[in-house]
Amino acid sequence: MAASIIAIDAMGGDYGPRCIVPASVACLAEFPSLHLVLVGQAPLLEELVARIPAVDRQRLQIEHASEVIAMDERPAQALRGKPDASMRVALELVRNGRAQACVSAGNTGALMALSRYVLKTLPGIDRPAMVSAIPTARGHCHLLDLGANVDCSAEHLYQFAVMGAVAAEALGTARPRVALLNVGTEDIKGNQQVKLAANLLQQAEGLNYIGYIEGDGLYRGDADVVVCDGFVGNILLKSSEGLASMISSRMEALFNESLGARIVGVLALPLLRRLRTELTPARHNGASFLGLQGIVIKSHGSAGSDGFQSAIRRALIEVRENLPQRLHGRLEHLLL
Amino acid sequence: MAASIIAIDAMGGDYGPRCIVPASVACLAEFPSLHLVLVGQAPLLEELVARIPAVDRQRLQIEHASEVIAMDERPAQALRGKPDASMRVALELVRNGRAQACVSAGNTGALMALSRYVLKTLPGIDRPAMVSAIPTARGHCHLLDLGANVDCSAEHLYQFAVMGAVAAEALGTARPRVALLNVGTEDIKGNQQVKLAANLLQQAEGLNYIGYIEGDGLYRGDADVVVCDGFVGNILLKSSEGLASMISSRMEALFNESLGARIVGVLALPLLRRLRTELTPARHNGASFLGLQGIVIKSHGSAGSDGFQSAIRRALIEVRENLPQRLHGRLEHLLL
Repeated sequence: MAASIIAIDAMGGDYGPRCIVPASVACLAEFPSLHLVLVGQAPLLEELVARIPAVDRQRLQIEHASEVIAMDERPAQALRGKPDASMRVALELVRNGRAQACVSAGNTGALMALSRYVLKTLPGIDRPAMVSAIPTARGHCHLLDLGANVDCSAEHLYQFAVMGAVAAEALGTARPRVALLNVGTEDIKGNQQVKLAANLLQQAEGLNYIGYIEGDGLYRGDADVVVCDGFVGNILLKSSEGLASMISSRMEALFNESLGARIVGVLALPLLRRLRTELTPARHNGASFLGLQGIVIKSHGSAGSDGFQSAIRRALIEVRENLPQRLHGRLEHLLL
Repeated sequence: MAASIIAIDAMGGDYGPRCIVPASVACLAEFPSLHLVLVGQAPLLEELVARIPAVDRQRLQIEHASEVIAMDERPAQALRGKPDASMRVALELVRNGRAQACVSAGNTGALMALSRYVLKTLPGIDRPAMVSAIPTARGHCHLLDLGANVDCSAEHLYQFAVMGAVAAEALGTARPRVALLNVGTEDIKGNQQVKLAANLLQQAEGLNYIGYIEGDGLYRGDADVVVCDGFVGNILLKSSEGLASMISSRMEALFNESLGARIVGVLALPLLRRLRTELTPARHNGASFLGLQGIVIKSHGSAGSDGFQSAIRRALIEVRENLPQRLHGRLEHLLL
């Protein structure tokens, strides 16, 4: 298998390089054709790497970057003020062809702004979108946008639908069913942008557009790709995470109410844990930025080692599927 | 205790009068000071009432209405074309002072349109909002709007915040913490309407405004009143219902995987069922329309007898608290 080179922004995330470096090195052992470039403060990264036994340094480079973008830094400030930030240098490795994908657990807004600036969007795409696979009763669906674009026109929603469909196909779903998230399934329902986007999607050839979907239909698994603006998508994702977490806690509390319930609880605990991981996909697997001339995966800021490794795996799949190239090819046919 | 008279649209909902009539009559037995007016096709209603033993007909009237609004009828059509619809006649009983509240399980859009037309909004309120109590890790929060208004200006969001706070107070929460639902908690986050609404709320005296809240914060119980436009609120509510239902089913499936798990599952089933009821409050308890010159409770279309009874109980509380009057008094101080 051909080598895949992934640039890692080693300085981002709530836990920083102490979490990211070991997680990245673990992926080297898992994928023999994987090469990594760790980007960040070289002395610190060298020290962290040196602590890990049996690292294959042939497949691990360290690229120095002197600056770090803080998790709460404004995107505009990150864009203008930090030319040598680890996140930016990692993206530049992708632009220069030295890496095929970038993975970062850093500031989402800054990563989106820098990705657009450094890599540029694909022809025909105004704005990249964030997508992640959400669990449903029938498997999973790809939900976008997850928060990169709080205000969206009908054309933006249309572009998200096209990108989501191509990505779902690349990730293994044949003729993905594409739906627009709405407050009802009748034609008269929804705001102006959603109604106009529905008109555009009905006319799109080669797209398996199935109409409107409601919040409960999404979790029933009625569609493979669900499209909404980033305000709605972000609130849906975070409220779902919050609800799943509340349900787990409530179950544990219920299981502690009586001795009988406690015994049941001890037995049920492994099942509950498994469910919790399944139900927080973005926290666990990260999100992909679609519509860029390059692959960028955002690992959740609060993701631990497992989560960061999942993000690297997602990057590897997109590299192997050559997702930006596939998107580019399909967009020429599907975009207006 | 003074008598409370509630008008029941007996013809609405997915199950119609065969569900609504027995549910209503059951409430008469529960609340000795409750009087009901069942509105709909009198011969049918008389027949259904006659089948129930020991009905206190002193406290139960039947008001004939010849027309029924279908669940999928357009609101504009319902408004213009059906002057003698059960829903409309029930609302007119409230306007004429013959009843103090109206409960309907019928078409939500039609109920909102007719409520506005028949009862009118309170001075200073442009649009009524739908509110329901959502379970959180710390109890519950009042979420509005749940879908009555898909496009909202900053002023509308501000009005919803004021109404939500007054309703939460009336229902027993002292100095309710009011938050705006957003994609982040920093000032720069959000769309234009949300940012402008935040400005208005920061200046409002007598309102315990605590700032932005994210989807996960809502379920953590970080606020007592959470405000958003009806598009976002409806999608949050329905996706939460869908997710809760998916988790229950997934738990049951996990509990069936092995004999050991199956035994655990049998023991856990009552806990799971209790949780499912807790987690679908709008389906169970209905939603209240706030901002009208009268009390209107929307019972979920698919609610069974228990759900319809919960909606009647909610109406009774609002009657006892004289919610529209309280709202009117506070709005004069709080609205711009």
